[in-house]
Amino acid sequence: MPPAPGDRAARREDVSEAVWRTLAAKGFGGLTLRAVATEMGVSTGMLMHYFPTKRALVAHALDVLEKRTANRPRRGRPAEGLPALRAVLLDILPLTPDDTARNRVWVSSWDLALADEGLGADQAGRYTRMRALLRPHLEAARHLGQLPAAVDPERLAATAVAFVHGLVVQALFDPERFPEDVQTSMVDGFLRGLTADVPPSSPH
Amino acid sequence: MPPAPGDRAARREDVSEAVWRTLAAKGFGGLTLRAVATEMGVSTGMLMHYFPTKRALVAHALDVLEKRTANRPRRGRPAEGLPALRAVLLDILPLTPDDTARNRVWVSSWDLALADEGLGADQAGRYTRMRALLRPHLEAARHLGQLPAAVDPERLAATAVAFVHGLVVQALFDPERFPEDVQTSMVDGFLRGLTADVPPSSPH
Repeated sequence: MPPAPGDRAARREDVSEAVWRTLAAKGFGGLTLRAVATEMGVSTGMLMHYFPTKRALVAHALDVLEKRTANRPRRGRPAEGLPALRAVLLDILPLTPDDTARNRVWVSSWDLALADEGLGADQAGRYTRMRALLRPHLEAARHLGQLPAAVDPERLAATAVAFVHGLVVQALFDPERFPEDVQTSMVDGFLRGLTADVPPSSPH
Repeated sequence: MPPAPGDRAARREDVSEAVWRTLAAKGFGGLTLRAVATEMGVSTGMLMHYFPTKRALVAHALDVLEKRTANRPRRGRPAEGLPALRAVLLDILPLTPDDTARNRVWVSSWDLALADEGLGADQAGRYTRMRALLRPHLEAARHLGQLPAAVDPERLAATAVAFVHGLVVQALFDPERFPEDVQTSMVDGFLRGLTADVPPSSPH
């Protein structure tokens, strides 16, 4: 007798959870059918009903990562301009165990993405969307006089993405050196710095 | 007859070159005995004389990466303070094909390092040394009046490392969006920003 649809959905959820726990512990380099099967306490053969190939497993893992990132809890966006940008940046950083696990898996995925043209293009697109997400806050900050009129919102968005992702990596490798208050004060210092990031020839 | 010592050294150099080309093309995720053997046009069995295990191959690859990074050509350090810091940051970025290949392999190594306690500690140590390398330039900049007296060189060093590594990752995934002049102008903007990264309560 085939399993009832509810069972099948529950089992699918179990598989996704096991894939996630494997990723969070071992990254994409350690994501194998055997590791996920061990995590679930089932046979590799059973798991091959879900993932006939390694590629299918990786595709599912990337899908879980995207969904978890899209559905993560976020800070409110109470104010316009730099305070809103601050909230966006803090939402990216590894400040909680869940945020840390998700960032750890993203950083791990870069190895895969750099070696695969399609995945690399996906990641480039993700960066383009991140910059597009930050840019309106920078434009609002300029409009509100929080930033000088001469700033370049597109360049500042790329600089902010660079800063926040580089901080993610440093903090993942040395969490004791980068607790929440240190990461937060670095974000605040960085935001103050944006006010001076103006080409020297520009009038302001 | 065993090969002459000179032959053996030359063969060892060939192996290192093949390991490097494999890494630059496929990252650590694609570093296998078979891939290196294919790159060299030899059998996997031959290569097992050099690397009896996958772990030995990875250890050698990390060693090649460290050596290439240590021996890379660097800009002169003509001036003190922020101009010297600028040269250090530009030396890190993927501005040439060799710099790009090296950065690509470093980013790929983070997956491995996040999954291995010893390699993770090595990477944390590398970040500590990077901050220690930048800090004297920030202290000199403060001493020379290029930065306000109230800046915190240790925090700024961590911020600069974050910015430059995050820019490395963005530029690797989207080299057309981040040619040399864009990366350079982002560094210059970031350095101007450091002058405003001062806690608001500090007198300056």
